[in-house]
Amino acid sequence: MDAKDFIQKTLSEISPVNQEPVKEAEKYQSNLAMPPGSMGELLKIGQKLAGITGKLHNSLVKKRIIVLCADNGVVQEGVSSAPQSVTASQAVNMTKHLTGMSCLAAHFNNEIQVVDVGIKCDYDCPEILNRKIRKGTDSILHGRAMSLEEAEQAVKTGIELADMAAEDKVNVAGVGEMGIGNTTTSTAVLSVLTQTSPEKITGRGGCITDKMLAHKKEVIEKAIKKNKPDSSDVIDVLSCVGGFDLAAMCGVFLGCAKNRIPVVIDGYISVVAALCAFRLNKNVRDYLFASHVSEEKGYKIAIEELSLVPYLNLGMRLGEGSGCPLAFEIMDSSCVIMNDMASFEKARINDSYLEELRTQK
Amino acid sequence: MDAKDFIQKTLSEISPVNQEPVKEAEKYQSNLAMPPGSMGELLKIGQKLAGITGKLHNSLVKKRIIVLCADNGVVQEGVSSAPQSVTASQAVNMTKHLTGMSCLAAHFNNEIQVVDVGIKCDYDCPEILNRKIRKGTDSILHGRAMSLEEAEQAVKTGIELADMAAEDKVNVAGVGEMGIGNTTTSTAVLSVLTQTSPEKITGRGGCITDKMLAHKKEVIEKAIKKNKPDSSDVIDVLSCVGGFDLAAMCGVFLGCAKNRIPVVIDGYISVVAALCAFRLNKNVRDYLFASHVSEEKGYKIAIEELSLVPYLNLGMRLGEGSGCPLAFEIMDSSCVIMNDMASFEKARINDSYLEELRTQK
Repeated sequence: MDAKDFIQKTLSEISPVNQEPVKEAEKYQSNLAMPPGSMGELLKIGQKLAGITGKLHNSLVKKRIIVLCADNGVVQEGVSSAPQSVTASQAVNMTKHLTGMSCLAAHFNNEIQVVDVGIKCDYDCPEILNRKIRKGTDSILHGRAMSLEEAEQAVKTGIELADMAAEDKVNVAGVGEMGIGNTTTSTAVLSVLTQTSPEKITGRGGCITDKMLAHKKEVIEKAIKKNKPDSSDVIDVLSCVGGFDLAAMCGVFLGCAKNRIPVVIDGYISVVAALCAFRLNKNVRDYLFASHVSEEKGYKIAIEELSLVPYLNLGMRLGEGSGCPLAFEIMDSSCVIMNDMASFEKARINDSYLEELRTQK
Repeated sequence: MDAKDFIQKTLSEISPVNQEPVKEAEKYQSNLAMPPGSMGELLKIGQKLAGITGKLHNSLVKKRIIVLCADNGVVQEGVSSAPQSVTASQAVNMTKHLTGMSCLAAHFNNEIQVVDVGIKCDYDCPEILNRKIRKGTDSILHGRAMSLEEAEQAVKTGIELADMAAEDKVNVAGVGEMGIGNTTTSTAVLSVLTQTSPEKITGRGGCITDKMLAHKKEVIEKAIKKNKPDSSDVIDVLSCVGGFDLAAMCGVFLGCAKNRIPVVIDGYISVVAALCAFRLNKNVRDYLFASHVSEEKGYKIAIEELSLVPYLNLGMRLGEGSGCPLAFEIMDSSCVIMNDMASFEKARINDSYLEELRTQK
């Protein structure tokens, strides 16, 4: 099956979650010994997980962060403070648990799957899964980042990674990235999808000067004008001004939804990819969990369209999937509430209970 | 030494953190392989912990949630939806890991110390530490909640619990509570301390009706008018309109600061107690960490005066210390970044690194 058909088939297989177990979870929670709703989002996560798995009681034993790594041609336009080589070196470092996300993942016992979908520089690291579409995209300032076929291939690759996670019985996935220049491509994609001016949403990415920021905005504006992506066609948008990382991440979100795997959005790049997946099929939202509020300007617009509440407010803007390990712990907490907390009956909250205790004395 | 002198001695022993290790931590972090500051609050926590312990690299091995339990006489005025007996029954349930906070604490391997500083009902549970001041306070609507001496005794008790934590080599503490009616007393204390009208900050606590909310506001207003607490004298405020739980929690915050133990604020009651401690000695702030944004209205006012950023946004309003387990995991994450993440040098982020990798092939 070619990539285009594969994507279409996937889209047709993404169902909304079952509302029956959601309601059951809500009912179960109303019997837990606490003021109604007082555990807030932990309860809502419990309901959402019930809808996804069909079970009231869940355990997220196997957690995997899927990290899509690729280079972006737009880096040649001077939009980034870091050299392009950082993509390859940090991808390698992730496999050694030396980066921000990966040392957290090691601490919390999360699996990491580092995937090369388009790293430009050569490296020697068998721990990186090779799914390279091509050695980096072209600069979006002068034409499409990639062909439509390549965009489809990248999305397909992401879906296949989610299929692999399903085969491996992963209980929850997180989606991260490594790709110098990808706040530029993400902003271009977000700008087109939401019809928001790059002026409003272009942020500082890694850490650029005022002068570079002005230049970055201009590059994004010109790239959109040059490529004229069709905002109603996500694959076209990704192909015109996106990246292999973004397209493959979009595929992971689609594939997780198809396989009914709860999937965590990291920061800015990740939320833009999630928005792409959501635009392709609205049911995707039922499987998404937000982790932290990214410091990047555009984050808010994307997360609001997804109607998701980020759990963490840590002022982070590292990417890599670095928000996923703590989000997993929050989701675990929700499972603990569903699995271990006492009902009013078990907690024996009534005056006869105390009477009984008094008699015991 | 009487309680009053003991508190004075404690206040004189609370020092600001050392700024030298804070600066060293900042310098160390600037060499970690990431865009400057991109791990946000995780970096600030690392700096703060360095200031407290004097060490760059910390491990929060022993985590303890100290839960102060007491009854509040004001419950007789019909300000709460739950019966008073719930204080005792939930205190007992905590020792069995059946409540929201305690099942999370068990999951995350946190110690729980449940302390009775004024539970009214009898119970039989040797796992609860008996530090009862008296069997519940008096109703603040008709006079002081407790005598000045009792307030001092409760604060002293809290300090002693922190001393015990220091002896037990606790690395980080959290402060929770159980006391039906304590959103009423907390709001009264906050209202007096910050000169904010109860109208503005009275919230629904457990979960009360509109009619009960109006009544609760009226009770708080009348209690303040009746008792005329001196807003510049924290002990007087606690004695007039506070509770044994609040006063002892204030003591735990003071004692942790004295003993240089990082200490986590839970929700509304906890932040009001932290504010009391801060008003008694401004250095206390150096040792405080906020966990989550409570849904109670007054939380924001208190946390803003403390200039702290809550890490979690989970819409929780359970109390008990339920925000502490996840806050501890966030603080652990900060330690992981300080202990395991690679420097630019170790990450070998430069072009020669890639050249070298190429040659290896």
